[in-house]
Amino acid sequence: MGEAAPRAAQAPDSAHNLKEGTGSAGNGAAAIDFRTEPARYRHWKLSTNGNVATLTMDVDEKAPLLGGYELKLNSYDLGVDIELADAIERLRFEHPEVAVIILKSGKDRVFCAGANIRMLAGATHAHKVNFCKFTNETRNSIEDASENSGQKYICVVNGTAAGGGYELALACDHIMLVDDGSAAVSLPELPLLAVLPGTGGLTRVTDKRKVRRDHADVFCTTEEGVKGKRAVDWRLVDEVMPRSRLDESVEKRAKAIAATLSGKPAKGIALTPVERKRTADGNEYKYVSVAFARDNRLATITLRGPESAPPSSADEMTKQGAAFWPLQLARELDDAILDIRLNELEVATIVFKSDGDAQRVLAHDAFLDANAAHWLTREIRFKWKRVLKRVDMTSRSLVTLVEPGSCFAGTLAEFIFAADRCYMLIGTMQGDNRAPATIVLDDANFSGVYAMSNGLSRLATRFLGEPGSLDAAKGETGKPLDAERVEALGLVTFALDDIDWEDEVRLFLEERASFSPDGLTGMEANLRFAGPETMETKIFARLTAWQNWIFQRPNAVGPEGALTRYGSGQKPNFDLKRV
Amino acid sequence: MGEAAPRAAQAPDSAHNLKEGTGSAGNGAAAIDFRTEPARYRHWKLSTNGNVATLTMDVDEKAPLLGGYELKLNSYDLGVDIELADAIERLRFEHPEVAVIILKSGKDRVFCAGANIRMLAGATHAHKVNFCKFTNETRNSIEDASENSGQKYICVVNGTAAGGGYELALACDHIMLVDDGSAAVSLPELPLLAVLPGTGGLTRVTDKRKVRRDHADVFCTTEEGVKGKRAVDWRLVDEVMPRSRLDESVEKRAKAIAATLSGKPAKGIALTPVERKRTADGNEYKYVSVAFARDNRLATITLRGPESAPPSSADEMTKQGAAFWPLQLARELDDAILDIRLNELEVATIVFKSDGDAQRVLAHDAFLDANAAHWLTREIRFKWKRVLKRVDMTSRSLVTLVEPGSCFAGTLAEFIFAADRCYMLIGTMQGDNRAPATIVLDDANFSGVYAMSNGLSRLATRFLGEPGSLDAAKGETGKPLDAERVEALGLVTFALDDIDWEDEVRLFLEERASFSPDGLTGMEANLRFAGPETMETKIFARLTAWQNWIFQRPNAVGPEGALTRYGSGQKPNFDLKRV
Repeated sequence: MGEAAPRAAQAPDSAHNLKEGTGSAGNGAAAIDFRTEPARYRHWKLSTNGNVATLTMDVDEKAPLLGGYELKLNSYDLGVDIELADAIERLRFEHPEVAVIILKSGKDRVFCAGANIRMLAGATHAHKVNFCKFTNETRNSIEDASENSGQKYICVVNGTAAGGGYELALACDHIMLVDDGSAAVSLPELPLLAVLPGTGGLTRVTDKRKVRRDHADVFCTTEEGVKGKRAVDWRLVDEVMPRSRLDESVEKRAKAIAATLSGKPAKGIALTPVERKRTADGNEYKYVSVAFARDNRLATITLRGPESAPPSSADEMTKQGAAFWPLQLARELDDAILDIRLNELEVATIVFKSDGDAQRVLAHDAFLDANAAHWLTREIRFKWKRVLKRVDMTSRSLVTLVEPGSCFAGTLAEFIFAADRCYMLIGTMQGDNRAPATIVLDDANFSGVYAMSNGLSRLATRFLGEPGSLDAAKGETGKPLDAERVEALGLVTFALDDIDWEDEVRLFLEERASFSPDGLTGMEANLRFAGPETMETKIFARLTAWQNWIFQRPNAVGPEGALTRYGSGQKPNFDLKRV
Repeated sequence: MGEAAPRAAQAPDSAHNLKEGTGSAGNGAAAIDFRTEPARYRHWKLSTNGNVATLTMDVDEKAPLLGGYELKLNSYDLGVDIELADAIERLRFEHPEVAVIILKSGKDRVFCAGANIRMLAGATHAHKVNFCKFTNETRNSIEDASENSGQKYICVVNGTAAGGGYELALACDHIMLVDDGSAAVSLPELPLLAVLPGTGGLTRVTDKRKVRRDHADVFCTTEEGVKGKRAVDWRLVDEVMPRSRLDESVEKRAKAIAATLSGKPAKGIALTPVERKRTADGNEYKYVSVAFARDNRLATITLRGPESAPPSSADEMTKQGAAFWPLQLARELDDAILDIRLNELEVATIVFKSDGDAQRVLAHDAFLDANAAHWLTREIRFKWKRVLKRVDMTSRSLVTLVEPGSCFAGTLAEFIFAADRCYMLIGTMQGDNRAPATIVLDDANFSGVYAMSNGLSRLATRFLGEPGSLDAAKGETGKPLDAERVEALGLVTFALDDIDWEDEVRLFLEERASFSPDGLTGMEANLRFAGPETMETKIFARLTAWQNWIFQRPNAVGPEGALTRYGSGQKPNFDLKRV
């Protein structure tokens, strides 16, 4: 397999490929759509019973996202994971009363066989990498729900949990394994396919479950995995029980965990569908516009500020529900980013702009602060935190342009610090009678409420080498800051007057488009995350990079590689040099 | 360029390629030798004057290690770096009186152009990766000398410091740049070659010098680099001065730094040559044997214990000098590991064994402890720490076999915890009348004196998930522990009796040799370093992995890639998909 090999046309045949509009999936397929809802799930069932929900994986093998393979044995592809991500998010917003989620299989004696191997063997390098990134974000969202929303995941492993199947279990809080002499957890990627468990498995084994290194070595090289008592002794699972006692044990465990989680809100809000109008050159949402200039390899995302003042009360906010500006904007932006990632592979640079009333943005931040303990404001801020992390993890160059009419204030100012660079116009452009642009900081930029994967706020990360600048910026909270002031404060990269603006910005965008896409990906992945490392940064930076490397190596994907030859009856033929 | 392309015979023509023995460099060239000494340097000059040393880089362009390129403009290859590593080490052992090292160029208006591009374009993937690993270890050894031995490095950038040239500067404590309108520091790898600065540059920019992310972005995409005041403002260098005041400024700075470092020992020891006898199937040193079973892709390293009791005093130790058992063993092992890394590319697994009297090993540890404040014992322990890290970073499977006659005690017990797995024989083999093997722990296994790159001892890393086991092991300090006891304590992976021993060990080694070499490299890199991350682990795990990935990408190394086309007058042709 290679990048250059022509791919068979992969007509998407699953329900969540809407075939709408004119988006190009970069690989010749119609656009991949990340919007779904339980009624349209093909692979999962979500049900709730009081404060316990059950999320059942029952993959429809005839409904692959890309085509050309069958999703046997609860193996998954991106389409399966899109539904899982949706379910996890709905549980937080629509079912905040839920304290425990039982994640189980709908198949007999099979939990999940992991990522579909035929899909991996046939997918482009870019799709494999994007697939792993999204599934990683989904696994992280399980841990995020557990940590921040008190929604604890119990994983019921009723049979084989192999590779990505076990990695899904690893993202849960509590893993229960049937002890029947055959059910096992395994990470067989290396012995079977010559690749790595690409969805956080190695990192969660070492850093979350803290499995001893030599045990981890044995585990990850044992195709059939580990079962029974040894799985518990090695901390690979939390408990084992006979099949006959499985249901009863799960129920007991769910009740016990739920009992520790009190004070749940009674009722959620509906996550109504994200409305998107796709045209040849863009995507239009209510608060987000995406304009593609594909010849220049650009996507310009304009974020629109709120149209009115914040609601008068938390009840009023709850009534607005998914239409409440911060929530609707976050969901629209999330969709826009994912669409670019998967469907617009040649976009080199994402340009962030904003349009609106900064004071209204700040008023919404103030409203969220004033109601900080309310479950919905909490969920909205956590959602923003995840969306901003999704931006950080997007392997496109990011630039924010601050111009008259913009509203980069508070939450929206995060886009200045999330970007690889920010340019701000000094004064106005000739013929534009709007006031010169300003930036306003508020508490959201400092409090850590939108912490990056490294655990620090974007401003704290920016100023790791100059803590005095962080204090100076804090001292300016609430004040509209003009271009020269923010440049002096170190908040933007360059402040430019109208004479230089167009040329400088154009030159930057052209230069960016001229560089090696891979080189930029590697460079940005290293420059964006200074400071502390966390399990999350380890997964995205370290594990992902190794996996990307291996996904290119002939020993995995060459004509005689293990991934290519899997299932062919032929053994792989390896280049034996250790590198 | 590709792995499969036959390489022109690269007859090494530099002085440090000894062409001795029958080693195979894996790429058809004669073996690369890491042993050198100042009298044989081709590229560096080392001089000392009181407590200030000067290390002058003056690369002989006609003396490349591999052949087929010229080392113009102080560009370097592995041969140049082998000399630098030697000089840094000699400064610590032979010149402990030195407090400040002035690292400068012997060329006019050129500091260092970085890694030689023709060498990179022509080298195999394996050589590129091994080259980067060694140069990284050398840069780390500069920081190690600064931190642990109070030998501070001043880097004098008298002209261009590009790519690896600036990365060398980044490893120093203090960077002085001439301000003459042309001298600049730069990381032009991305715009020029579509690869990353592979020797820690990105990580040191973000995490050591804490350059603001957007400044780092501008810097790393600006081919010509940054000079003058901006270089200081952005924290890329520490100070600039006119060329006319350069010598005077350096002298002043060196004196000022030296004045802060008091209490230096007066006199060092000579690092006499490491004697090695190379045969067709191995390397023999005094305390280390390396036996290759190339058909089985194995290298067995046997570490021999001391032949006598430790010296009676620190003076006596100083007299023994490089012949003092712990120091001689460490130097021999370092050479053996590097030889396998670069010259035995198809070795899949390194087997560690030991042979000797455990009590004498412990007596040496006790001697080092008793003289812990002596400069030479300190240097020896730091040397061991570096050698053990070199083992950790070696991308071969590591297994330790504990058998009768072995002496895995104290310092040598680290090899049990440095290995991916450890097997220990219960009792004895038939016909062997030696006592059953035991393991003895001492303070060196717990104190952190041999901390891994993650900052923790190997045992603390091993037991991250079970602190009680760490305490239990500590409670057994000084006691000879038999196989069943150490297995119960979690110190070895498997304890096996004589009936299972041979088959189990053989099966493991065969299995290891059957796996994808790349897959193992990625897996081991992820499993070996649980717990905290440091700048060092970031460099080796994160930056290296991205660089390895990019070193495989067609945009860099394909027929139309930037590295391939560099200097050809043709522009690279990129696959524009962002991944």
